Amino acid sequence: MNNQKTLAVLGGTGNEGKGLALRWANAGYKVILGSRSAEKAAEVAEEMNAILGSSNVSGSGNVQAAEQADIAVLTVPYSAQRAVVEEVQHALSGKILVDVTVPLKPPRVFQVQLPDNGSAVQAVQTFLGDGVKVVSAFQNISAHHLTDLDYRFDCEVLVCGDDAEACETVIQMSEAIGLHAWHAGVLANSVVAEALTSVLIAINKRYKTPSAGIRITGVNAA
Amino acid sequence: MNNQKTLAVLGGTGNEGKGLALRWANAGYKVILGSRSAEKAAEVAEEMNAILGSSNVSGSGNVQAAEQADIAVLTVPYSAQRAVVEEVQHALSGKILVDVTVPLKPPRVFQVQLPDNGSAVQAVQTFLGDGVKVVSAFQNISAHHLTDLDYRFDCEVLVCGDDAEACETVIQMSEAIGLHAWHAGVLANSVVAEALTSVLIAINKRYKTPSAGIRITGVNAA
Repeated sequence: MNNQKTLAVLGGTGNEGKGLALRWANAGYKVILGSRSAEKAAEVAEEMNAILGSSNVSGSGNVQAAEQADIAVLTVPYSAQRAVVEEVQHALSGKILVDVTVPLKPPRVFQVQLPDNGSAVQAVQTFLGDGVKVVSAFQNISAHHLTDLDYRFDCEVLVCGDDAEACETVIQMSEAIGLHAWHAGVLANSVVAEALTSVLIAINKRYKTPSAGIRITGVNAA
Repeated sequence: MNNQKTLAVLGGTGNEGKGLALRWANAGYKVILGSRSAEKAAEVAEEMNAILGSSNVSGSGNVQAAEQADIAVLTVPYSAQRAVVEEVQHALSGKILVDVTVPLKPPRVFQVQLPDNGSAVQAVQTFLGDGVKVVSAFQNISAHHLTDLDYRFDCEVLVCGDDAEACETVIQMSEAIGLHAWHAGVLANSVVAEALTSVLIAINKRYKTPSAGIRITGVNAA
């Protein structure tokens, strides 16, 4: 059972991290919020447990969270991505790292500005090497509605990675919190998910809506 | 009226070009098919006129087509993109060039492999300079169903460009042939549309479907 796994949400006190963590804890996963501040992580964890009436969530520093987890999820801002990956590297060996990072460069967040070598997540996989199964997902899910547990998303998740089994695990993690997910191919294809966030921000601006998303069409439901 | 405009479809004897051209001619546009072979273009044009029972379509070489058109649409394979743009450059001044090019690199067409500088269309805009309004669109519409005039697409079009008015013109061209289109931001955002084709090919392969597409969600219909 996938939801017997322990998830570390690194950057778990940020908006996207908090939202995903709350939904996973609500779905029965054990979740460790990782943060630069272990104290803040513990506080936010207690708030979540109070909301859920459970004890599924705990908080600690990023390193300790990664060490204790089966699967790590990286939800930090792009500017912090590399530093946190370096910090927790030793704890990731043999595990799945789910990278949610969107390489936005403020202030022109409505414009795609990818790193030179394509996708941000590929640089992470290259740095970590084959011993860590890096999977890219959740970049296009607006943090806005994640903490509203009754909200049904009309946005789907593109899951990209070079290890098919790891992708399948992440697809199950996504479906478990009400987000329909697609295996969208190799890790290099993460370019689409990473860049799409800027397109959705451009559409939000142009069409005056808070949270545009995407859906894949033309495929019969699995 | 937009459909009083004359469109040149460069590479108009290829599958994608033929499909778009047929639909535009059916919607009332005057269409000139451009091809390396003027003779082949004229033949295909006659076939289309026979199907439509009209005389909206003519055929010629790419240069002559671009010279006579108000708006040029580039539907050649990636490997021919630059050469055709150089060939017709003199005829594009003050016009809109709609670029449909997808930078696929066979045989790994299911893997995003963007040019070094990001999107293929940005290289075209840089080459042509400010005198030509380059707009990116239609990369994700499978040629498969375009020539079936009764087929209703469940895939939407991302329109990217730095000139808002030119984008609006292309959105109207898209809506005129039954393809709902979105202003998806600046030309740099074309990375998403160009790379998305590989993701859709990966999804087609994985989920055994002929023509996955995308839809934008969370925006009230205009």
